[in-house]
Amino acid sequence: MTRINLPVATVHVGREQSHLAWDPAISPIASIDSGEVVEFDCLDASNGQITAESTTESLADLDFAGVDQVNGPIEVAGAEPGDTLQVDLLDFTPADWGWTASIPGFGLLAEDFPDGHLKITRLSAASDRVEFWPGIRIPLAPFCGELGVAPETGPRSTIPPDLHGGNMDTRHLVAGSTLFLPIFHPGARFSVGDGHATQGDGEVSGTAIETPMRALIRLTVRKDLHVTGPEFLAAPDPHAALRNGARYATDGIGPDLMTAARDALRRMIEWLGREHDLEPMQAYLLCSVAVDLRISEIVDVPNFVVTAHCPLGIFD
Amino acid sequence: MTRINLPVATVHVGREQSHLAWDPAISPIASIDSGEVVEFDCLDASNGQITAESTTESLADLDFAGVDQVNGPIEVAGAEPGDTLQVDLLDFTPADWGWTASIPGFGLLAEDFPDGHLKITRLSAASDRVEFWPGIRIPLAPFCGELGVAPETGPRSTIPPDLHGGNMDTRHLVAGSTLFLPIFHPGARFSVGDGHATQGDGEVSGTAIETPMRALIRLTVRKDLHVTGPEFLAAPDPHAALRNGARYATDGIGPDLMTAARDALRRMIEWLGREHDLEPMQAYLLCSVAVDLRISEIVDVPNFVVTAHCPLGIFD
Repeated sequence: MTRINLPVATVHVGREQSHLAWDPAISPIASIDSGEVVEFDCLDASNGQITAESTTESLADLDFAGVDQVNGPIEVAGAEPGDTLQVDLLDFTPADWGWTASIPGFGLLAEDFPDGHLKITRLSAASDRVEFWPGIRIPLAPFCGELGVAPETGPRSTIPPDLHGGNMDTRHLVAGSTLFLPIFHPGARFSVGDGHATQGDGEVSGTAIETPMRALIRLTVRKDLHVTGPEFLAAPDPHAALRNGARYATDGIGPDLMTAARDALRRMIEWLGREHDLEPMQAYLLCSVAVDLRISEIVDVPNFVVTAHCPLGIFD
Repeated sequence: MTRINLPVATVHVGREQSHLAWDPAISPIASIDSGEVVEFDCLDASNGQITAESTTESLADLDFAGVDQVNGPIEVAGAEPGDTLQVDLLDFTPADWGWTASIPGFGLLAEDFPDGHLKITRLSAASDRVEFWPGIRIPLAPFCGELGVAPETGPRSTIPPDLHGGNMDTRHLVAGSTLFLPIFHPGARFSVGDGHATQGDGEVSGTAIETPMRALIRLTVRKDLHVTGPEFLAAPDPHAALRNGARYATDGIGPDLMTAARDALRRMIEWLGREHDLEPMQAYLLCSVAVDLRISEIVDVPNFVVTAHCPLGIFD
């Protein structure tokens, strides 16, 4: 999270310069040359509806028609369909707070958690760990959940990701990583949003630690490269030793990967209750921000294994 | 892979003491007290049909009715249904060779790779890396793909894993890890097999570096614990810095996780060809032993993201 030696942005995109659909019909708000740097100032994924003072009751007033906005689009001169957009992620600066929620009807275990819950977490620039529940300190690794170009056709919701990128919610896209996106329209038209202070692989409750985010991003047209979907050069995991150190892991096993993932997660929530006295809702939200879903085995037909990994280093 | 201070085994299970089904009707070959240590001498998953001198042509003679044998079963005195079997994985010693294959009709991309291929790799006890293709050295982290107890009902094939364990092919179950399995029958009746010198999350071609393996395992009955499927305490990833260092990653995105996994893998194979001049079959086998499948996002309906991660540290 060092900010030394960062390049200067050519364009600044304000938090109000956002849109609510991926749509090639949306006009660019600015144009840059290939290789220039843009600073994006993004509200959180609730588009400012949730604040540091919000409570679980606030979720009832959430207008879903206004969430998951993305800031942009920025046109990159010379970009043509079939080219690739190289997105160098230079820096992410979260706000001093974030929120994590279980929203009724949304999330991997929506059926198990019909009631909503909102948790506000205070963040500090002075530490790369945050106490999420008492005695449980999780590593911060900020990134943006939404990164995309104008899709082939639109308008499309900003909720599901697709080959143009969008809501990929991929925790490995931290500063130092480089994303490659296919280009479908002249100018590429890049937008970004959905700041996350940290997240587990899967984002199981449907939310990370959601936070307003400043993102510094270099956009470069690559005519020598053709990709068919998002690919990326991942920076070294900033918390590899903790995240891949001693872990407790639970399996889901069966012919359907989605069901296996749910089963693995349910067993992890059960373990967090048994061993760490967490209520199910506390455990579910912790999993969303700190537990990683991996596919352990995907070939031994008819049964496959999805494993949830919880790093033990988060427990005091 | 240190062998100092290892406990002495009470029972030695020979490579011929194996069975070809998970079945509660199979009688134990030996009985131990809870907490005793067993040494298992296991042939590779081909049950000795493939040797260090085998070639791709040898695959035509492979008798699938004789593969994926497991050694045991060992009865643990006092184990009752509803208890948990604690399986402390103390040491794994692979042979000095192993094999990796694409077997027609088997594997995540069976449709893309209709022709078989067999690759023999020489292993050395002196190094924790092995050159898999010229200039590509992958980390070794030996474990056993099959670890299980007598299932609730049987006989059952040893190919698919299930809640009793079995062919979980989980690369995190290296020495130092502890597996917890539900117990369905008196004595638990534990068996093990399918030695792997190393593997990626997913085991995408259907084979790891398959190798004969000596396994030293402590079996303990836990009456204070009840699990409903396999759970484990994972030892720190012995190659966390390499495996979670800089990586190239490719996405598959869509409503079906299996299809998304295939798409991510196909893009990874394409990248390995584009950037590292690997033939598709070379790339496919490399993915099976060194590339990890992670679920990046599983909540943004209707589209989910599976990501294949290839550590860059494997390339000279």
